[in-house]
Amino acid sequence: MHIHGGDIYGKAVEMDFSANLNFLGMPDSVRQAAKEGVDASIHYPDPQCRALRAALAEAEQIPEEQILCGNGAADLIFGLALAVKPKKALVWAPGFNEYEQALRAVDCSVGYLPLRREEGFAYRVEALEAVTPEVDMLFFCNPQNPTGQTASADFLEALLDRCQETGTLCVADECFLEFLDEEERFSAKPALAYMENLFVLKAFTKLYAMPGLRLGYGLCSNGELLQRMREVLQPWSVSVPAQRAGVAALGETEYVRRTQALVRQERRFLKEQMRELGCKIYGSKANFVFFQGPEDLAAFCLDRGILIRDCRNYQGLGPGYYRVAVRSREENTRLLEVLRERMA
Amino acid sequence: MHIHGGDIYGKAVEMDFSANLNFLGMPDSVRQAAKEGVDASIHYPDPQCRALRAALAEAEQIPEEQILCGNGAADLIFGLALAVKPKKALVWAPGFNEYEQALRAVDCSVGYLPLRREEGFAYRVEALEAVTPEVDMLFFCNPQNPTGQTASADFLEALLDRCQETGTLCVADECFLEFLDEEERFSAKPALAYMENLFVLKAFTKLYAMPGLRLGYGLCSNGELLQRMREVLQPWSVSVPAQRAGVAALGETEYVRRTQALVRQERRFLKEQMRELGCKIYGSKANFVFFQGPEDLAAFCLDRGILIRDCRNYQGLGPGYYRVAVRSREENTRLLEVLRERMA
Repeated sequence: MHIHGGDIYGKAVEMDFSANLNFLGMPDSVRQAAKEGVDASIHYPDPQCRALRAALAEAEQIPEEQILCGNGAADLIFGLALAVKPKKALVWAPGFNEYEQALRAVDCSVGYLPLRREEGFAYRVEALEAVTPEVDMLFFCNPQNPTGQTASADFLEALLDRCQETGTLCVADECFLEFLDEEERFSAKPALAYMENLFVLKAFTKLYAMPGLRLGYGLCSNGELLQRMREVLQPWSVSVPAQRAGVAALGETEYVRRTQALVRQERRFLKEQMRELGCKIYGSKANFVFFQGPEDLAAFCLDRGILIRDCRNYQGLGPGYYRVAVRSREENTRLLEVLRERMA
Repeated sequence: MHIHGGDIYGKAVEMDFSANLNFLGMPDSVRQAAKEGVDASIHYPDPQCRALRAALAEAEQIPEEQILCGNGAADLIFGLALAVKPKKALVWAPGFNEYEQALRAVDCSVGYLPLRREEGFAYRVEALEAVTPEVDMLFFCNPQNPTGQTASADFLEALLDRCQETGTLCVADECFLEFLDEEERFSAKPALAYMENLFVLKAFTKLYAMPGLRLGYGLCSNGELLQRMREVLQPWSVSVPAQRAGVAALGETEYVRRTQALVRQERRFLKEQMRELGCKIYGSKANFVFFQGPEDLAAFCLDRGILIRDCRNYQGLGPGYYRVAVRSREENTRLLEVLRERMA
């Protein structure tokens, strides 16, 4: 069985803190475009996602031919594994489980780069010694999920340099990057200009609160790799509603600015209050808070209609680790009430 | 580049005969449900597709645990290849290109079971001799695409018996089965009760004219195979709009009956008229007509706003083979006018 955040089905959930989605909800323009996309779904989707890729090229300032869209970022993660068929790969632990699932689907041996609790699960340059020429692929998530730790400019440079030296394909997952404060927002994107073994992964899911529509994309300057990915992915992977929604989302620059300001404010509030309640907080620089608490906390919250992410099934973690999304003041206050009840 | 039917993008297309979709269009209830699904897309999709699988179990009279949903049937074809990782597989030629694409993605050797023009591309029991114990997997499409040929009850029995003997996984693609006249509609489904190496593939795409939403499903009594497929497919493969649309579609029994009657009538009309114009027609028992005509016919039609499927890129075919969907009387009449213009 898959265990993930956001699985509200078959449970009595009033508030979902388990999925790290923008609490402002889906912008109206995105919702409207997706509905027009339903009407247009009497045709097959454009296999090349032409309109969406043109809009992305403009927004990202990246040539269209370096952009590949997928049925959520997860589709591209599986596509990468299948296109590259790595023998040996590395992932950071704890980390997003789909990297490993996709790698195992192609019988790849998966090693872990450990993030240490005593160091607040921060990225460490020393860990990069394990990246050797035998390592075909490395998944790297910035900010990291579930910890919300970030890569500094120095760490990012060291990581990319190392992958250049060893010829390791670096997959930089930046699905949460836009939620960081500006001064912490270091993207691997500029390296695309000179680095062919780099794939930058992004999604609409979290920033535009549209996880049910499924839309992600990748940026890569290696045309051969993109071609190989197109060969191992089905041609109609991205639905018409998702393609339309994506184009509309890229016009929502004001919504993104508002999101960033509100997330900053609510993240600060939530972390301060949780610390006062005695939760041990790590990282948490994006739109979610990662912390240690009582081992029965997830069950306790669910009994009160609140779904939080129990992180015990992450490699390198265990019982007592949790992740909650940063949400609206009203919802955060309700969460804090329940936490207070349990921590008292 | 992928070449497929239904790619209307980047062309001036008034009428699309290249995709084999129900010309009645998407039922209103399906459209409405998909739009409600857009509103509900602020949550992740149910990875287990619980509501949809319950509705399918009722409609198909198959236990829920024997049903797996995917992002279109193509998603399941790739999932099958990745789950089984066959060394050697067979496909019928000409046939749907995605089987081979998915098999090649896992480095499988692909052999062709030839369908012969001089036999009207009909399925032949003698060809089954090539199905030996070394063959891990066999794709079989009934009715066949692009020819519209069907499997008789006898042929189907011989095929399934052979796969039982050789231990070959038989993937029976029945995406167009509902468009056949009832007396030709032989499904492999009853064999699921005693055959573990059988996977029956079905889609909502064609019957409910919803190709842009992406929804397919598979039926299989081999729990281990289904579990392995879940491991190699991403958990959120099927979008919320698609899951909602699927549930609504299964309530549209009257629409399906009306479709079948209209398709029968229009197929007869189109075939008769095309024969009179001198088109050489083969098979064509589903909702599309497969024929030979002048080598420039597709370009000639496109110049007049009509997209037809040029079948020259199918294995075993060449220039001069075409497929057109059976559509409304008005559209069919327009197509015939253009054909008449060229054939004169």
